[in-house]
Amino acid sequence: MREIYLDNSATTPLCDEAKRSMIEAMECYGNPSSLHSKGFDSSKVILDARNKVLASLFVRSGKPENLVFTASGTEADNLALLGVAYAKARRANRIITTDSEHSAIENTLKTLENDGFEVIRLSTKNGVIDIEEFKSVMNKNTLLVSIMQVNNETGAVYNIKELFKIAKQINADVVTHTDAVQSYMKMKVSPVELCADLISISAHKIHGPKGIGALYISPDVIKKKQIKPIIYGGGQEFGFRSGTENLVGIAGFGAAAERGFKNLAKDVVSMRELRAYALEKLSSLDIRVNLPKGECAPHVINITLPSIKSETMLHHLSANGIYVSSGSACASNSSTKKMSRALRGFGLSDFDADCSLRVSFSAFNTKDEIDELVNSLKNGIERLVKIK
Amino acid sequence: MREIYLDNSATTPLCDEAKRSMIEAMECYGNPSSLHSKGFDSSKVILDARNKVLASLFVRSGKPENLVFTASGTEADNLALLGVAYAKARRANRIITTDSEHSAIENTLKTLENDGFEVIRLSTKNGVIDIEEFKSVMNKNTLLVSIMQVNNETGAVYNIKELFKIAKQINADVVTHTDAVQSYMKMKVSPVELCADLISISAHKIHGPKGIGALYISPDVIKKKQIKPIIYGGGQEFGFRSGTENLVGIAGFGAAAERGFKNLAKDVVSMRELRAYALEKLSSLDIRVNLPKGECAPHVINITLPSIKSETMLHHLSANGIYVSSGSACASNSSTKKMSRALRGFGLSDFDADCSLRVSFSAFNTKDEIDELVNSLKNGIERLVKIK
Repeated sequence: MREIYLDNSATTPLCDEAKRSMIEAMECYGNPSSLHSKGFDSSKVILDARNKVLASLFVRSGKPENLVFTASGTEADNLALLGVAYAKARRANRIITTDSEHSAIENTLKTLENDGFEVIRLSTKNGVIDIEEFKSVMNKNTLLVSIMQVNNETGAVYNIKELFKIAKQINADVVTHTDAVQSYMKMKVSPVELCADLISISAHKIHGPKGIGALYISPDVIKKKQIKPIIYGGGQEFGFRSGTENLVGIAGFGAAAERGFKNLAKDVVSMRELRAYALEKLSSLDIRVNLPKGECAPHVINITLPSIKSETMLHHLSANGIYVSSGSACASNSSTKKMSRALRGFGLSDFDADCSLRVSFSAFNTKDEIDELVNSLKNGIERLVKIK
Repeated sequence: MREIYLDNSATTPLCDEAKRSMIEAMECYGNPSSLHSKGFDSSKVILDARNKVLASLFVRSGKPENLVFTASGTEADNLALLGVAYAKARRANRIITTDSEHSAIENTLKTLENDGFEVIRLSTKNGVIDIEEFKSVMNKNTLLVSIMQVNNETGAVYNIKELFKIAKQINADVVTHTDAVQSYMKMKVSPVELCADLISISAHKIHGPKGIGALYISPDVIKKKQIKPIIYGGGQEFGFRSGTENLVGIAGFGAAAERGFKNLAKDVVSMRELRAYALEKLSSLDIRVNLPKGECAPHVINITLPSIKSETMLHHLSANGIYVSSGSACASNSSTKKMSRALRGFGLSDFDADCSLRVSFSAFNTKDEIDELVNSLKNGIERLVKIK
């Protein structure tokens, strides 16, 4: 059976460049911390990948320490939030975020709330953050603003550039962080342009390997010691993240970042075209597209089915070799069913959220695949049991 | 030039089984959390590896949740220490450890000390922990005992089985943890036999990939909720460690564990023979072997050179294609030179520690390689500049 993978916001297949680079790195076995030449060979692999990832963030004059490799986008988010909160705990107490962040942000902030920090969650209704609402809560007591660049379920692009600039105007000492896991390689992600001190990214969303992410840390945050490590030990990753480095994963990340960066403009055009094509085709079906009111990422479409549970449709599509998502994949392994916070924040009722699917593209998808998705969806809508 | 790798305590080359398994896993691209069949394929890879690693710890009736994959042995240590300390913070305050633990333990405990926990460090002079000293500090206020099974620099085997039993007799609620990174696949590592609630292991010391480790967690600790996560998010790894899983690394770990477990008895004999052969050959040189008074692991020899800096000798050997270590590799990436805590704890002066080398084998090494090491060492001792 032909496989049509349209769940690229959950994860992506490895690109050939990443595979090749990983297989090559398997032969490089020294410990990067070792003082002999086998160690140096390994540390060269890491430095090369680090420079490629920094370049993909449009950081041309960055130092190696501005990029810390982590085991995931989740760990990068944890390092950003816990690292800044505990480094600045005595100086300020408020953290501003949104009501539709990834669970790596939301659940980390919950532990900070339990520990006495104040967390303000901005509304993201219809995929838009209100600037006046932000201004009304942003103050001198705010230590951190953490807002994702692209929502992983709706594709809504949040206006972080504007918000981060306002944040810095109100409080020069505030640290700005964006979880750019969903925007990385879908648009320009540049710390300077976004006015972002910290940026979380992940390899497996850009055709790199799973289990490797990174946190960009601005020179200013390092200089002001506004971040602390969350994992302690031998001092790898400039002391920000101890543990022997994931050499194969890092090599794969570097190769995927290089490939993605080289093809960024072209890939974005491809994804935009696919999305426009899909939106047109989907308009013939009895579904609702949950379109953000503002800008939308080129690779995500969220739809609500006519009273059909998303899980039911997901299994129908999966049986036909078509893979989409019924919500954020990272949230689907909990035993109790949780309604999507992102969709609720967007304005959907629990009933509608339960009937919603996410279709997400990469530049490797084709219009032909979209046709098959639409046919299979049409077929499912006609045949599957509707809920009351 | 022929390469002779005798730095296996720092890291090891990948075995063929791990390589094959990793290359295979590269084709398995679904997100293990996804609800469609691409996701299930990936979660099967993880379950298979988990079972192999559990089996290698002689855990035959274990549940999947008894093994949490982490990004490193270091992260496993952090999860054990921080996770237990903060879960039990209100009930007890003392943590007992040794003066020669890996920096992943020592530096994590330092942060716990800063946070108000009391840390007692037992002496490991000559590679031995005194039971009476342990009894004198072990009490009802002790929340955690964390002692490594094999010291990474001297190869000393600590009597943790006895100590952990005494700990439980004095305080049934104490959690026992061992950093078994250096003992795993060098001897039997079994939580039941060692009376260990938590065990940290790492793939790259057993011919698996770098960047993947695991923490064994006993059913009792889970039931009593004696451990908390340190990374928050989507709830992967049974909620103990969020973040999309390192599929390729986990597959490699599973394969390396399976290979190592199958060959454990044979490999230990090989390493013991190599060590005995090396000790005999080394006895002809003007060096001192730092032999633990008690049991010693089959794969480590620590020697002190006659007034030659270990770094000088290390470079001499490296130039001849022979790779050994001048201390724990994980500690060598700090800019300021630090004397080895482990060697100081063993009883060496700073001067002697600065002249000490670690030679560490795997079953893949040969007697022929030992001959070349001894020749090159002899040559170096004759030619290299002595320090006063």
